[in-house]
Amino acid sequence: MRVIIDVMGGDRPEEIVRGAFLSAKKFGDTKFVAVGDKAFVYKIAAEENAGGLLDVIDASEVVSNDESPTMAIKTKKDSSMVKSLYALKDDDDAIGMVSTGSTGAVLTGGSLIIGRLPGIYRPTLLSQIPNEVGGVTCIADSGANVDAHPEWLYQFAVMGSAYMRAMTGKEKPSVALLSVGTEEHKGNELTRAAYALLKNSNLNFLGNMEAREALSGDYDVLVCDGYDGNILIKSTEGAAKTIMSLLKQNVMASASAKIGYLFMKKALRNLKNYMDFNNYGGGPFLGIKKAVIKAHGASKASSVYNSVIQIRKIHDGKVIEAISREVAEVNE
Amino acid sequence: MRVIIDVMGGDRPEEIVRGAFLSAKKFGDTKFVAVGDKAFVYKIAAEENAGGLLDVIDASEVVSNDESPTMAIKTKKDSSMVKSLYALKDDDDAIGMVSTGSTGAVLTGGSLIIGRLPGIYRPTLLSQIPNEVGGVTCIADSGANVDAHPEWLYQFAVMGSAYMRAMTGKEKPSVALLSVGTEEHKGNELTRAAYALLKNSNLNFLGNMEAREALSGDYDVLVCDGYDGNILIKSTEGAAKTIMSLLKQNVMASASAKIGYLFMKKALRNLKNYMDFNNYGGGPFLGIKKAVIKAHGASKASSVYNSVIQIRKIHDGKVIEAISREVAEVNE
Repeated sequence: MRVIIDVMGGDRPEEIVRGAFLSAKKFGDTKFVAVGDKAFVYKIAAEENAGGLLDVIDASEVVSNDESPTMAIKTKKDSSMVKSLYALKDDDDAIGMVSTGSTGAVLTGGSLIIGRLPGIYRPTLLSQIPNEVGGVTCIADSGANVDAHPEWLYQFAVMGSAYMRAMTGKEKPSVALLSVGTEEHKGNELTRAAYALLKNSNLNFLGNMEAREALSGDYDVLVCDGYDGNILIKSTEGAAKTIMSLLKQNVMASASAKIGYLFMKKALRNLKNYMDFNNYGGGPFLGIKKAVIKAHGASKASSVYNSVIQIRKIHDGKVIEAISREVAEVNE
Repeated sequence: MRVIIDVMGGDRPEEIVRGAFLSAKKFGDTKFVAVGDKAFVYKIAAEENAGGLLDVIDASEVVSNDESPTMAIKTKKDSSMVKSLYALKDDDDAIGMVSTGSTGAVLTGGSLIIGRLPGIYRPTLLSQIPNEVGGVTCIADSGANVDAHPEWLYQFAVMGSAYMRAMTGKEKPSVALLSVGTEEHKGNELTRAAYALLKNSNLNFLGNMEAREALSGDYDVLVCDGYDGNILIKSTEGAAKTIMSLLKQNVMASASAKIGYLFMKKALRNLKNYMDFNNYGGGPFLGIKKAVIKAHGASKASSVYNSVIQIRKIHDGKVIEAISREVAEVNE
């Protein structure tokens, strides 16, 4: 089997190539295909003493974050993004792809080139965030669909549940609906209608959840539209950044706190490490015919490696087949 | 002038009464009216050696968080909430009211009993959150209107701006629209339409802002519907709670970190203090004819005192008059 890695488009192409080599060294049963500037990949191969370990598809163009995703997918035929998507689509042995490039282009290209599964209203981009009890919680949708309908949210729950089953081994991952209060009647028009659908589903639906509990670890899948998912994730990121900055300000203002900081350095580094997105892979784009992982633009090699693990779990856990089957059952 | 304090309905009535006494001792130019169980207030007055410092209106009922706000406002005529609202409405000298009771009842009662200002589509509940640069940022709306229209968001911006002018002394507080990206075209249907209105307004509108920047201090007023405001605030709260809990876990796992913690104790306490809502007063409910502050259910005396300062600033800054005038100008 093969995994396709779009090595361009992110902030650190060199790290992505190194992540591809790291993955190739770890997983002997899989062939890795790096798509991007061939000379660049070969240069790093020489440094890694790893000539021949990767297949390379040369691509002369890069899709940037600033351009229109639809235009880019339609016109930049020689970009690493478009060539990666075709390499995934056209090769029956290819089980998935990782890209750190433009999110919009991954979503548009995933839908246009790889194609939606039958019966899917809208594919969803999931995000995984580390929670308080040492696991990850996934947010579906995390930004692909800013204006959603209740039936879409229902499908996001089905997809998130199938994905988390493969990740955690739980037969019935728990699902909660992001809302402004836990009672059934709390929410806006969208979530109240989605609640009714989820309540009558076969999912392990635990009801509404407030944003305050998102990181508690009590839920495997949080369902929301992409607008609210984006706000949830970015508020969390922003709060973490602000608290660390305020802590630093308070430490720097006191001599004894500076001494304390030295003793606590390792604990603080562990905390930082725990919150580092690189340790959790990227966000799977689900509802299309193959596994596509959108990893963070600033990803390091470890993020690529962890995204490869996600692709393998999606493959081994037959997540895409499960989504197909479960969505068909729901639509009946 | 008079300020009305609903002393019941929150989690700590005794603290609210003490906050009323604290305010009465600080502000000799103002008469404070405590509304609630008379015997209970007198008991605390005796402990505080402050008999006669407060006016008291006896109220035998309490509106709880579990009951329907509309039913409670309509039927519990002898509740501290309803009696406070009438005390505010019927007394020309009363400049504002603080309640730590049910948010829904404060909003419903504020609209039904105090009444909307002419031309206001929907009153808005603001929240203030401490930001990274030592000030507060206000969120309008923070939960009163879960399904909003673009014109409502425009009015929330006008109201938030008038309020922050009085709080900060800035002639033109900066306003940003909460969205999923900074570019003008980013957002959902609601925010894209609101963007167009705000862009052509007289407000100091700086464009879209991502949730990650909410605490940066770059903006005085963040405009959003109550659903997204709620998610933003609760995500921030949840992230703060989780980070502190993870920090503790990491500290407890290491002997040297425990020593470090002792040296850093004061800095950590300062940080905790900085994030303590009691130091920032409550959330003003704007768009009605008088100043009503909804303070946190778990408020301590200091929160009541800080809410009184807000009421005085709203009064001195003629915020309600400004909202009336500016909304009329916009509607023309």
